[in-house]
Amino acid sequence: MNASEQLAELGRDFHRRGWALGTSGNFSTVIERDPLRIAITASSLDKSRLSAEHILEIDGHGKVLPPTHGTPSAETLLHLAIVRTVGAGAVLHTHSVWSTILSDYYIGQGGFFIEGYEMLKGLEGVRTHDHREWLPIIENSQDMEALSAETHLMLEADSNIHGFLIRRHGLYTWGKDLSEAARHVEILEFLLESVGRRHMMEPQY
Amino acid sequence: MNASEQLAELGRDFHRRGWALGTSGNFSTVIERDPLRIAITASSLDKSRLSAEHILEIDGHGKVLPPTHGTPSAETLLHLAIVRTVGAGAVLHTHSVWSTILSDYYIGQGGFFIEGYEMLKGLEGVRTHDHREWLPIIENSQDMEALSAETHLMLEADSNIHGFLIRRHGLYTWGKDLSEAARHVEILEFLLESVGRRHMMEPQY
Amino acid sequence: MNASEQLAELGRDFHRRGWALGTSGNFSTVIERDPLRIAITASSLDKSRLSAEHILEIDGHGKVLPPTHGTPSAETLLHLAIVRTVGAGAVLHTHSVWSTILSDYYIGQGGFFIEGYEMLKGLEGVRTHDHREWLPIIENSQDMEALSAETHLMLEADSNIHGFLIRRHGLYTWGKDLSEAARHVEILEFLLESVGRRHMMEPQY
Amino acid sequence: MNASEQLAELGRDFHRRGWALGTSGNFSTVIERDPLRIAITASSLDKSRLSAEHILEIDGHGKVLPPTHGTPSAETLLHLAIVRTVGAGAVLHTHSVWSTILSDYYIGQGGFFIEGYEMLKGLEGVRTHDHREWLPIIENSQDMEALSAETHLMLEADSNIHGFLIRRHGLYTWGKDLSEAARHVEILEFLLESVGRRHMMEPQY
Repeated sequence: MNASEQLAELGRDFHRRGWALGTSGNFSTVIERDPLRIAITASSLDKSRLSAEHILEIDGHGKVLPPTHGTPSAETLLHLAIVRTVGAGAVLHTHSVWSTILSDYYIGQGGFFIEGYEMLKGLEGVRTHDHREWLPIIENSQDMEALSAETHLMLEADSNIHGFLIRRHGLYTWGKDLSEAARHVEILEFLLESVGRRHMMEPQY
Repeated sequence: MNASEQLAELGRDFHRRGWALGTSGNFSTVIERDPLRIAITASSLDKSRLSAEHILEIDGHGKVLPPTHGTPSAETLLHLAIVRTVGAGAVLHTHSVWSTILSDYYIGQGGFFIEGYEMLKGLEGVRTHDHREWLPIIENSQDMEALSAETHLMLEADSNIHGFLIRRHGLYTWGKDLSEAARHVEILEFLLESVGRRHMMEPQY
Repeated sequence: MNASEQLAELGRDFHRRGWALGTSGNFSTVIERDPLRIAITASSLDKSRLSAEHILEIDGHGKVLPPTHGTPSAETLLHLAIVRTVGAGAVLHTHSVWSTILSDYYIGQGGFFIEGYEMLKGLEGVRTHDHREWLPIIENSQDMEALSAETHLMLEADSNIHGFLIRRHGLYTWGKDLSEAARHVEILEFLLESVGRRHMMEPQY
Repeated sequence: MNASEQLAELGRDFHRRGWALGTSGNFSTVIERDPLRIAITASSLDKSRLSAEHILEIDGHGKVLPPTHGTPSAETLLHLAIVRTVGAGAVLHTHSVWSTILSDYYIGQGGFFIEGYEMLKGLEGVRTHDHREWLPIIENSQDMEALSAETHLMLEADSNIHGFLIRRHGLYTWGKDLSEAARHVEILEFLLESVGRRHMMEPQY
């Protein structure tokens, strides 16, 4: 499978799992570094029917490259900021119920720690459950230039994170390639559900 | 696929997702505006086995048009009221657990606001998460003339809404065509689950 | 499909939906009334791999009839008691998480009412949501003669019920045929989940 | 199907059910007792794509036997400890949300009882719901020698248990063969979800 087919298959799978309902979710993977070329989902698509023809190729300024054509995801600038700042090879944005409500619940403290879970070892570079993962939350905005600038600053300030939440908007994570990024989605979605349900068992927790 | 096949496929998918269990749920799409002709699910069907032959064609008075025959959904008048009042091209009624319990929990205030969620942008015409969507709730009734008259008045009074709940009965939403209406179901079901679980994390919320 | 194939397909579907995990769940359908002949699942089967050969035929005393052979479900006497007392054409026992925990939570009051839900109309003979359905709970026991005698007395005393729970053991429901009984499972499982989650939103409810 | 194909199919099924996300979960089955030979999943695999070629054969010291090659699961020593101490024919480690959060919630008391549930009868040797199953919890560790030694001592001290939890890490269970072990996973995951949700209905419970 080529990059477009892989992104399309991933999108359909994420829709089925409730992580990319409606037209939510957008996914990209780096095709070439220099000059930068990225495959990314087009804007406003129903992910349950995503196919390779819905994947566009863009350059480092977000300009669509022929022979593909269309409007790339509205969040293209965020993908580019992440690719550039952390050197990611793939960026995935999902929009699950748990990421949505936790990003709202913990906004007051700017994020939260996920700590002591074995599942953390599924995050690149984490070797033990005895790890404290900070998951930052940024306020949502429709100003993509501002949001991508904020993302860039956040990633520069803390290069140890593996993802972040946008308030009431979901999760961004990445990896050196699509397979690692997809694993990070599974890991973080599992941890978000665990944190949420753990809290419900013992609200003062 | 023609309209009947599309409605049947949608019904089976909604059953699988728990939104149309038992014989619940009914779905319609406008075939012609003038004179009005609508394709709608027949009454009392198991949606897991819905096929094109279970879809009837009716006129603007709810009369079944040949060559189709059978009894249209008991809630046909509601579909007609929505089609006429907001000019919808498709109307979908689902019956999930979350719509059922939230329609009961918030009945005392006649509805509730869904506010600040990025997912709201999946609703037609909403351009920002910074939006306040009112989801009205009306009391359930077996008197379909009364219920459709109430629906008509509610939709005339507030043309900005994208759906409403009937108490302990589920969700009605619509769209300019079947695809938009189906997206509205996904969006609203996601938001209902988010509102419900958010409340459970912090009951005073 | 014959009765055995239908029961096997239903069992696999119920397993997939989490209603018949491990070796739980047993299902029967009446083949002939006089003399009574019933198709019923054999004992201790993994329902994910249920096939027609796992369905036995028994007489009114629970004796296995050739050419089928094997051990019928341990709960055969309960199926026979229900078939005889209410004249059911099919009896289904499922074992979901929600039926398990609600049967424990409400044991002190011997059952609970499910009231005001539109979904109640999926139960045979119920014509309005404005209905009060009593769902009795009986204590669990490994003494099947005692349990079936208690079931018989309960069903004689209240012929209006559509199912009952056994404490921490799950749901029994039935219908005039397999299709109606299967619809009753879907309806009651939906209502149990709704009652449970409604309670969690507002514990004093 | 041979042992490798069976383990691979089980792994894909467990991934689909959310019990082996990311690279979590590991599974083994005994091929020969004397000298001990075990089929076990290789380390760090995405279980959604598990195939027979990902299954290694090891001896009683954890050494990989030709013609298979690769790195066996990091938790191989735990599998060996369980096989030896209780004579298991198959060992399965799953990593669900419910096992993760209950293993954290009850760590202070070293485990918890699961009691009075009919589903307990799906555990080998349990004949009645009137049974009190102790599910021990041990602290998580990356020191596999220490963890397997602790496991060995725990299993020697209490030969009646059917599984145990590792804190924030999930469930270990086993059986005389793969089919029994897989049933134990289904049974225990069902019971964990039931215990967790039961608690949420009534926090003082």
